[in-house]
Amino acid sequence: MPDQKIQEYRDSIDSINLEILQLLSKRASVVSQIGKRQTEMGQKHYDPTRESEMLEKLEAANPGPFAGGTIKQLFKEIFKASLDLEEKQDKPKLKYSRKAKPENTTVVVSRGDVRVEFGGAEKVLISGPCSIESWEQMESTAAFVASRGVKLLRGGAYKPRTSPYGFQGLGEEGLQYGARAAAMHGQVFVAEVMDTRDVELAAHYADMLQVGTRNAQNFALLKEVGKAGKPVLLKRGMSSTMEEWLLTAEYILSSGNDQIVLCERGIRTFEKWTRNTLDLSAVAVAKLETHLPVIVDVTHAAGRRDILIPLAKAALAVGADGVHVEVHPNPATALSDNEQQLDFAGFDQFMLEVRPMLGWK
Amino acid sequence: MPDQKIQEYRDSIDSINLEILQLLSKRASVVSQIGKRQTEMGQKHYDPTRESEMLEKLEAANPGPFAGGTIKQLFKEIFKASLDLEEKQDKPKLKYSRKAKPENTTVVVSRGDVRVEFGGAEKVLISGPCSIESWEQMESTAAFVASRGVKLLRGGAYKPRTSPYGFQGLGEEGLQYGARAAAMHGQVFVAEVMDTRDVELAAHYADMLQVGTRNAQNFALLKEVGKAGKPVLLKRGMSSTMEEWLLTAEYILSSGNDQIVLCERGIRTFEKWTRNTLDLSAVAVAKLETHLPVIVDVTHAAGRRDILIPLAKAALAVGADGVHVEVHPNPATALSDNEQQLDFAGFDQFMLEVRPMLGWK
Amino acid sequence: MPDQKIQEYRDSIDSINLEILQLLSKRASVVSQIGKRQTEMGQKHYDPTRESEMLEKLEAANPGPFAGGTIKQLFKEIFKASLDLEEKQDKPKLKYSRKAKPENTTVVVSRGDVRVEFGGAEKVLISGPCSIESWEQMESTAAFVASRGVKLLRGGAYKPRTSPYGFQGLGEEGLQYGARAAAMHGQVFVAEVMDTRDVELAAHYADMLQVGTRNAQNFALLKEVGKAGKPVLLKRGMSSTMEEWLLTAEYILSSGNDQIVLCERGIRTFEKWTRNTLDLSAVAVAKLETHLPVIVDVTHAAGRRDILIPLAKAALAVGADGVHVEVHPNPATALSDNEQQLDFAGFDQFMLEVRPMLGWK
Amino acid sequence: MPDQKIQEYRDSIDSINLEILQLLSKRASVVSQIGKRQTEMGQKHYDPTRESEMLEKLEAANPGPFAGGTIKQLFKEIFKASLDLEEKQDKPKLKYSRKAKPENTTVVVSRGDVRVEFGGAEKVLISGPCSIESWEQMESTAAFVASRGVKLLRGGAYKPRTSPYGFQGLGEEGLQYGARAAAMHGQVFVAEVMDTRDVELAAHYADMLQVGTRNAQNFALLKEVGKAGKPVLLKRGMSSTMEEWLLTAEYILSSGNDQIVLCERGIRTFEKWTRNTLDLSAVAVAKLETHLPVIVDVTHAAGRRDILIPLAKAALAVGADGVHVEVHPNPATALSDNEQQLDFAGFDQFMLEVRPMLGWK
Repeated sequence: MPDQKIQEYRDSIDSINLEILQLLSKRASVVSQIGKRQTEMGQKHYDPTRESEMLEKLEAANPGPFAGGTIKQLFKEIFKASLDLEEKQDKPKLKYSRKAKPENTTVVVSRGDVRVEFGGAEKVLISGPCSIESWEQMESTAAFVASRGVKLLRGGAYKPRTSPYGFQGLGEEGLQYGARAAAMHGQVFVAEVMDTRDVELAAHYADMLQVGTRNAQNFALLKEVGKAGKPVLLKRGMSSTMEEWLLTAEYILSSGNDQIVLCERGIRTFEKWTRNTLDLSAVAVAKLETHLPVIVDVTHAAGRRDILIPLAKAALAVGADGVHVEVHPNPATALSDNEQQLDFAGFDQFMLEVRPMLGWK
Repeated sequence: MPDQKIQEYRDSIDSINLEILQLLSKRASVVSQIGKRQTEMGQKHYDPTRESEMLEKLEAANPGPFAGGTIKQLFKEIFKASLDLEEKQDKPKLKYSRKAKPENTTVVVSRGDVRVEFGGAEKVLISGPCSIESWEQMESTAAFVASRGVKLLRGGAYKPRTSPYGFQGLGEEGLQYGARAAAMHGQVFVAEVMDTRDVELAAHYADMLQVGTRNAQNFALLKEVGKAGKPVLLKRGMSSTMEEWLLTAEYILSSGNDQIVLCERGIRTFEKWTRNTLDLSAVAVAKLETHLPVIVDVTHAAGRRDILIPLAKAALAVGADGVHVEVHPNPATALSDNEQQLDFAGFDQFMLEVRPMLGWK
Repeated sequence: MPDQKIQEYRDSIDSINLEILQLLSKRASVVSQIGKRQTEMGQKHYDPTRESEMLEKLEAANPGPFAGGTIKQLFKEIFKASLDLEEKQDKPKLKYSRKAKPENTTVVVSRGDVRVEFGGAEKVLISGPCSIESWEQMESTAAFVASRGVKLLRGGAYKPRTSPYGFQGLGEEGLQYGARAAAMHGQVFVAEVMDTRDVELAAHYADMLQVGTRNAQNFALLKEVGKAGKPVLLKRGMSSTMEEWLLTAEYILSSGNDQIVLCERGIRTFEKWTRNTLDLSAVAVAKLETHLPVIVDVTHAAGRRDILIPLAKAALAVGADGVHVEVHPNPATALSDNEQQLDFAGFDQFMLEVRPMLGWK
Repeated sequence: MPDQKIQEYRDSIDSINLEILQLLSKRASVVSQIGKRQTEMGQKHYDPTRESEMLEKLEAANPGPFAGGTIKQLFKEIFKASLDLEEKQDKPKLKYSRKAKPENTTVVVSRGDVRVEFGGAEKVLISGPCSIESWEQMESTAAFVASRGVKLLRGGAYKPRTSPYGFQGLGEEGLQYGARAAAMHGQVFVAEVMDTRDVELAAHYADMLQVGTRNAQNFALLKEVGKAGKPVLLKRGMSSTMEEWLLTAEYILSSGNDQIVLCERGIRTFEKWTRNTLDLSAVAVAKLETHLPVIVDVTHAAGRRDILIPLAKAALAVGADGVHVEVHPNPATALSDNEQQLDFAGFDQFMLEVRPMLGWK
């Protein structure tokens, strides 16, 4: 309970607060008029030289008790708020944000009668081998996962390999195998693309284009994929902050394409018992901050088969719209990532435990 | 299909393999006899000088085609396998491992009639304020969470604060408040301890002792807590690998205390939108590798209130035996961590969504 | 060149700025009077409830065009500046800061005639084995490094080991060996301490106490070491931010002891080819921000012998006041860290290349 | 001193060792003959099915005392050594390695009479603005740094920006300004390229092509840049391990281009007081492991102006062949990275302190 003296001081502060408020509002209106005039004249709004001059005048006129640095800091905040106000008036909000679009975006991947929807009541399962190695391998995997209800087939035709001497993928031949296998088994097909020059070709064969973790900040590729007219599976960079990840989606959104599925796949940390550290908080935050569907690639997050089931359950519980898990007819002989792909028996066990959380009819 | 020539070579290799196998077995038996003799004579088994001599002899005798370095590498593996064999015969396995104890360990925290069990069918919820600030704050929080079914009350009496000028906790007074509030509301009480000299006092008031993230590798404290005769809540260090975390449990287990609950609470990464990065893979791995109960502290992992519910669901889905979440009557005025504690209304919302996964009757 | 219209608006803004400045100053004076009154009455200055009320009043009175959230944000900055002002008037600055003490602090470690000074013209070299294993090992190492000019001998008597089954050190016996070996060879002796209960004993034998990386946030130990009356070698936590590192020094400084040498020793990152990632930027920043001497432990940073020389040169070039490097008579048989300690020949090579940068007469 | 019994056992082991050695050598010869036959028949050498069969036979025949898993592990090492042997015989070593090429590679960037050499006695300084913003800005910077002896001018025409709404660079216009400014002031010009489709154009204007940190694993770009016939400045990915970094160089080397300068620029860690954590151990390791020149970008490592001088000194002391530092006529108004670029006065101070370490005549 404040005593009377303090109460008097507080009343005095309340009235000063209101005076400052009036002045801030008045100031903002004038700034807004300058902004309009600058726009008419084709000038940029932000003028650091003018800002420096104002700050110097204020510092010179400062009677205390605040230090000059504090006064400059406070006015910088005021300048920034004014600039933000103008920018908000001039410019659209970030398109990924729920503030710009409160309702969920649904992403549809389809070919002919086949239709897969992200962001609806049913969760999506994406499956298939890491790399497309041969027609037999791709077709048998497609047949198997299709028989278990998987409608979205994956398979890498262009493989980003740490070493130039690793298997680099079959290229167009791989895309053909993937598209054909998907078509035979009533599926749609998602394939990664790594080079702006390959986007058109990949979009010819694939129903959804993937941007991989190593290209998460390959901005030229993001723009090109954004213009290809296909839904995009956008993996988080292995060391991208959440903010950077959402801004990569913004690159695609700003190309006019809102058919984007965000995919968390683990981030790089000091931990060695998993290949990456799965960051499910990023899924929770992405569901809050954006209107886009979010899925989780448990295979690359874990880098080991024995925890894929609990991770998939956790991903669905945290609110993910789907799960990405790799399957290979014979993981021991796979040309890439053979420690972490499920074999067919392993996939059946996975489905037994995870299917109840998928909401499939 | 190999041709006949290759088949002949392969048969030849098969028989060489078997000869090597016989020699490796014979060698291991002799090494084992040396080991027994050394034990009799009180000598250490590992003798790097002897190893160096053997390697030099082998390198000198090497007829090729392997390089000398390769031969030395292969024999080092053979030496290591022999030494491991001896050590396995001499020494117990790591006590935390499921190989040492396949069945789950149940941890019981109790006082009088109150009994909380970790590792059983019902999941455990630990709640209470970050810091114990006053009797009123502690009692009202205990009353509230008890009314929602929480039987394990937390509250910090010794606070590890980054700055020496931060609120350091009420010390013994805080322990008294916590113990009294728990007793009034049919709960047991868990409190963190930071100094070996405080362990006895803390064990007098608290029913379970917590080792916090900053003391995860304070080995003197681990040993002392292990001997205090109370169950231990063992947080993962904010930059401990999973292996290091499990080895901190081994410190306590080797003191003769197996009443340990492991607690994942997020690790330090480059990400800035959450205070730490919750590592649920570590929970999945800990459940595989150890027989100890594992819980998740969602509050410190997130550092923000708005994703606590989805994280708690994910924690339970991945297989955690419980969740730790902080509650404060008025988080805005809390003396520590005020960004992340739930208020009472927030806790009710949390329970509404998370309770169905707790398996409470 | 702004046109006339814009110029008029700018003049108007300049005068509004000055009005706001006057009000801010007036407001700060009233707040300062409240603060004095609160101090008289024994009340805390920060009152979040009062703050909330003010913000609500302002939001209610806000005529636009700023959003309510922006107004609240701006006023929070103003409140914070006022509070900071009061706190600055009431409370001393952080003691580690150059703002509190612009000139360099010199740290002196001495016994009898032997005197080692950190922060002077000559750089300091700390050397010795990782663990003290026997009298012969300790004495021979002391003799050797003394013959090369090293006056500050190190050696671990209490060893923080990840596994409870690793060699834990010789304890008091080790301290005796270290102290005796140093005395025989005209050196002073630094030893790590890990338990608050061992501080007095360690301070009896050692001339400087080390707080290791795993205890960097063991605040009970920091306070106890601060009171022991000996200079302190304070290692950075392997995952401490620079800010946290300097605040651990503040714990010791606030105990009244300014004889602290900061030691950067590498931080934990994703990189695997070195044991830790040496962060020389932290040395540069610590030299800017603090008045304390800073040295670099190249041994633990690298975890491999073959880059110790270039790292030591870099450490001295960036401005470190000394280097810490481990030496063992026979690293291959060392009971800890045998991959990274130099043997005597390696140390001679090290000195040949590094000595010219030490400024030794 | 071993007793007689132990000595007898040891003699027995020595002779077993030699028998195993003979068998390993014999085995390797047979494997080598299989390999030749497989090469003749166009078959792959690695056959995981065959390996599995051999391991199963060995496990079945294992008489103990080794566990089956240990035997399989040891034979896997033997198989791997044999395969490595074959691969070494068939395939060249990694081209970046000093084992493949012990002597240092010199990289020359030249146009007309201007010639800059990396890896020679004189260290190289690369300077210029972050982004090319206008002809005036570029020309004035070129003139200034040229007057201080800088022969390699940098400037970004394509800017990788986290947000799609950030300044994206002037594109070809920027390249023209950079090339022209360099030509006017007796310099060569390095520019970043981000899109495979821009490589030809960039190579037309620039004398050296830079691959930036965000494209460190854009393998399509690495291959294209490798074929462009210009020296390459190859930045380390902000979260690339050293191994990954060197393998990105291998992509370019395997395209037939050995004119590569490696550039360490800081890695992403938890630390917040610097933009990245400069990893000078990586420079030391790269100088050991590769024959390529290595430089350090202190600007992006630090992200703050006040520690650029000590970091540059440390970089040169650790063995770097040069330093990259950004300079802008008026950093406060720069369109990107305005916190970290030096102004002209700052650059003069930088040169005053750093120049003596550059070895310039």
